[in-house]
Amino acid sequence: MEFWELERKLIEFRDARGWKRYHTPKNLAISAAVELGELLEHFQWDSDEEILESVKDPGKEEAIADEIADVIIYLTLLAHELGIDLNEALERKIRKNELKYPAPERPP
Amino acid sequence: MEFWELERKLIEFRDARGWKRYHTPKNLAISAAVELGELLEHFQWDSDEEILESVKDPGKEEAIADEIADVIIYLTLLAHELGIDLNEALERKIRKNELKYPAPERPP
Amino acid sequence: MEFWELERKLIEFRDARGWKRYHTPKNLAISAAVELGELLEHFQWDSDEEILESVKDPGKEEAIADEIADVIIYLTLLAHELGIDLNEALERKIRKNELKYPAPERPP
Amino acid sequence: MEFWELERKLIEFRDARGWKRYHTPKNLAISAAVELGELLEHFQWDSDEEILESVKDPGKEEAIADEIADVIIYLTLLAHELGIDLNEALERKIRKNELKYPAPERPP
Repeated sequence: MEFWELERKLIEFRDARGWKRYHTPKNLAISAAVELGELLEHFQWDSDEEILESVKDPGKEEAIADEIADVIIYLTLLAHELGIDLNEALERKIRKNELKYPAPERPP
Repeated sequence: MEFWELERKLIEFRDARGWKRYHTPKNLAISAAVELGELLEHFQWDSDEEILESVKDPGKEEAIADEIADVIIYLTLLAHELGIDLNEALERKIRKNELKYPAPERPP
Repeated sequence: MEFWELERKLIEFRDARGWKRYHTPKNLAISAAVELGELLEHFQWDSDEEILESVKDPGKEEAIADEIADVIIYLTLLAHELGIDLNEALERKIRKNELKYPAPERPP
Repeated sequence: MEFWELERKLIEFRDARGWKRYHTPKNLAISAAVELGELLEHFQWDSDEEILESVKDPGKEEAIADEIADVIIYLTLLAHELGIDLNEALERKIRKNELKYPAPERPP
């Protein structure tokens, strides 16, 4: 799936339900934060080792995957409202990071 | 760009710099939250109308796009560490949402 | 209640249950973020006017008050682990804000 | 300092600058999330041991204390706007936790 396909699916879903009026920038940004809070809940009391062990359980993996997906869904809807091309934004940010943090000549 | 391409680029970037050891689940989840905080800063005091007006300025649009990209970058790296296929996760979550919130017969 | 009283009550509560080992800085900071996500959920789709109207319902007010309290509880526990005196931290931050944003001579 | 004193100081500060109009529930909740993101930034790449070591440096301790204070400041302002008595909210939440998680007869 490309980012524009994800965006198209989400907008079709939203418009079929008449939810556009709720999708203001602030509401969508708050929604992304709500879902990120739910993602963080999975990492609240476990150590990194326990987390990596726990995702071997397919139910746990799916629960975490759902929360990651929810954050990306709201960020895609937010980008749509702001006229931001997510694919372009990601490619530009990766280029910026390469300039900001040049790779060492030999891999470390 | 497909999600697997984004993932591949990010892992190449990380490995060329020897940063894998910092990429624990908790660190990456915290990093996503840090970047989401920076995204929210753009929406802190403005109304939705002011936000939509402000992104007509290309510099402001790029600043917000960078923060959205950063959150997605850290979530992609987190999914990678947890063995989660982001493309599959998004398609499954969209199907779940369609079952949870059935569309009305006629668009509202 | 003073901040030191809140801190004392929370530490007594924690120690009576043997939970100190879970109270690492990262876990407590993540916990504050989880609870803030739950607080934000109350503001996700409503306008400011609707929010102010909704808290006239005592049940809704208590639900929001609980989430605010939870964030403050985890921040107090975090400050405790880091050896930070919350009362001093708040008084110092208020003084810093007064220097950074001097009040106009006449109230606006 | 009691919670009502903190609240009074913050409201005096705000009113002397004419900032009440920015203090809507959503703006204040977003502001708390922005500051929590800045707090999390201090815990992004360090281990718990490194964090506990780093706060022995007074400058680092003050930087973290400032961010904790900022989150509490915005939550206090949010509680004020919603008519929530923070002291009462905290005492009630502690009582609820005691009922939800009864202490074992003998400390563990």
